[in-house]
Amino acid sequence: MSNVWIAGAGMTRFGKRDETLPDLMAEAAFLALGEAGIECPDAIVVAAMNPEEFTGEGNYGSLIGTHLGLSRVPALRVETATSSGVAAVYVGFAAIAAGVHASVLVVGGEKMTHLPTPRVSEIIGRSIDPHERTYGSTMPALAGLVTRAAIHRRGFTLREISQVAVKNHAHGARNPFAHFQEQVTLEAVLESRMVADPLRLFHCCPISDGAAALVLSAEPRAVRIAGIGQGMDSIAVRYRSDLTTFRATQAAAGVAYRMAGFGPERVDVAEIHDAFTTFELISLEDTGLVPTGKAGRITLDGETAVGGRLPVNPSGGLKARGHPLAATGIAQIVELTWQLRGLAAGRQVEARVALAHSIGGLATNNWVTLLEAAPR
Amino acid sequence: MSNVWIAGAGMTRFGKRDETLPDLMAEAAFLALGEAGIECPDAIVVAAMNPEEFTGEGNYGSLIGTHLGLSRVPALRVETATSSGVAAVYVGFAAIAAGVHASVLVVGGEKMTHLPTPRVSEIIGRSIDPHERTYGSTMPALAGLVTRAAIHRRGFTLREISQVAVKNHAHGARNPFAHFQEQVTLEAVLESRMVADPLRLFHCCPISDGAAALVLSAEPRAVRIAGIGQGMDSIAVRYRSDLTTFRATQAAAGVAYRMAGFGPERVDVAEIHDAFTTFELISLEDTGLVPTGKAGRITLDGETAVGGRLPVNPSGGLKARGHPLAATGIAQIVELTWQLRGLAAGRQVEARVALAHSIGGLATNNWVTLLEAAPR
Repeated sequence: MSNVWIAGAGMTRFGKRDETLPDLMAEAAFLALGEAGIECPDAIVVAAMNPEEFTGEGNYGSLIGTHLGLSRVPALRVETATSSGVAAVYVGFAAIAAGVHASVLVVGGEKMTHLPTPRVSEIIGRSIDPHERTYGSTMPALAGLVTRAAIHRRGFTLREISQVAVKNHAHGARNPFAHFQEQVTLEAVLESRMVADPLRLFHCCPISDGAAALVLSAEPRAVRIAGIGQGMDSIAVRYRSDLTTFRATQAAAGVAYRMAGFGPERVDVAEIHDAFTTFELISLEDTGLVPTGKAGRITLDGETAVGGRLPVNPSGGLKARGHPLAATGIAQIVELTWQLRGLAAGRQVEARVALAHSIGGLATNNWVTLLEAAPR
Repeated sequence: MSNVWIAGAGMTRFGKRDETLPDLMAEAAFLALGEAGIECPDAIVVAAMNPEEFTGEGNYGSLIGTHLGLSRVPALRVETATSSGVAAVYVGFAAIAAGVHASVLVVGGEKMTHLPTPRVSEIIGRSIDPHERTYGSTMPALAGLVTRAAIHRRGFTLREISQVAVKNHAHGARNPFAHFQEQVTLEAVLESRMVADPLRLFHCCPISDGAAALVLSAEPRAVRIAGIGQGMDSIAVRYRSDLTTFRATQAAAGVAYRMAGFGPERVDVAEIHDAFTTFELISLEDTGLVPTGKAGRITLDGETAVGGRLPVNPSGGLKARGHPLAATGIAQIVELTWQLRGLAAGRQVEARVALAHSIGGLATNNWVTLLEAAPR
């Protein structure tokens, strides 16, 4: 397998955007292509979770190719629910690693804020097991269930879970691409509107529009994809032996570390899928970045803040940067590429190795990606 | 690149089916896995064009993995509109060719007949350029436009275009998996209800339910994927220089022939994307199987019938076997695998090399696949 490098990285500001999804994807794609110095990539991989229902348009591989003026470049769409962005990165990675292509544009995004929240919730809810959905399961409801179980069985506290939001909003306040660029206090989090007991509004990521893009290349650049792993679990939560760890993350991390040839001890910075803040704590332990039982403690101690020992979600995470579904997995890698290259002004950390973690559905289709900076 | 072999092939009967889409996919998948003698493939690639709108379910990689009892096997969904099936074959092919996986289950399908036809038409229409859709373009309308142009500029006759339907229904009558298993007369075709002038009902493929599956393997078997190519064109038909040839097919065929190291002269049998019968004539010439201007003539002469010099759509094609969107590209390869292995009882042809041709959208994202039988 050839090495795969990140030749270009770009994203739109996340948030409530008036542009169409093709325009958002074009903004991100041209930033990445421009940085890479590539006008015409060998292939395009598009990630969008459900553009048909969110925007009324389909055939997104062809649509985006034509919209970019690259209508003759082979393009496909890849989807794995909320982790679709990194699934597209994987398909591009594999094509370059195999020597099939020398450069691949990966672009993902979602446009959601124009729809009423119940409709967005219905569309996202299609990624839940059909039987469990008939009992009223929504993503926040299932996350509430996980959180309650984690509090009872693993001793997570509401203060720890809330501190994740405080930290990630503090990071988002330093990120001009973030949906929310304001800090929040612990009190504000604990007093925010109840969404799915015990999860309150400020424990949940927002509904966001946005797009992100990478140009992957066989030619050596500043940052390399050292490992990428996918892990699965039953779409039916009722079939799982444990609600408070995600088997899909543990499996994905194992694959990624084996491919990279190193373990979590070398990771300096991470972007973690904190769609609900509980998930950041669970995932820090599932990826092996933090010993079991310690994620809450080190969060309260500030170790996962920018300036701490292991900065987590310097971008603000899904919580504050926002979560335009299929953009997210790519945006995590964009942020970490900037961090490894020293381009994250205002929130820059010291790092040579970075980890991105993305969750698809209720942890049914998860991914871990490891990035490594080339020696300067 | 390693060789990629077809270790198992299976499909459901196409038509109006009462089963759910996951059940249809499971039926096809277990036939293919059973034939391959593989219980647990290294990965699953799922093709479905728009299961969210057709069936209300999403997250199809995870959903199908769990439904098959393979919830820990890495699974992704791939989509390129109506050619999604073969796009999924390509992603599986690439993973094996690159040495990443030793076996991949590729399964695709669609469930459509439970919805009213205007709703199906609306959902399929999302693959048309948004601007052109505002002028009332539907797939049959655009195919009517192409047909009219082909009659005027290239001298295709309505009799030639209608004979494709007669031939493919005659083939479908010998295929127990076909949606339509009755012959039709030329008169019946020419007198059927007008759909999009000059295309009548019997020039158009039906709305079908069904699924098809392949197990791809690195281990030598009876049939090999000798070449696979993707070709693109603008999603906006108004940007094309010519309405009566498909640039996307020509490009895909070029890639596939180069990969295979041989040209159209070695092809003994073909499955061609005849969603509208005009497309069979156009595509026979675009793939180089038939010299320009000759497709109509040889169809009338019976050369493309089973028993003729170059049998085309022995399965009945999309016209008679049916067209459950993302199942189709896989079902073509299933049929050709059976033909190459001598398993197509009742419609068997003599063949060592076979070609499958799939169209995504209005020829925006097309594919050509070449299969070759191992020496017996």
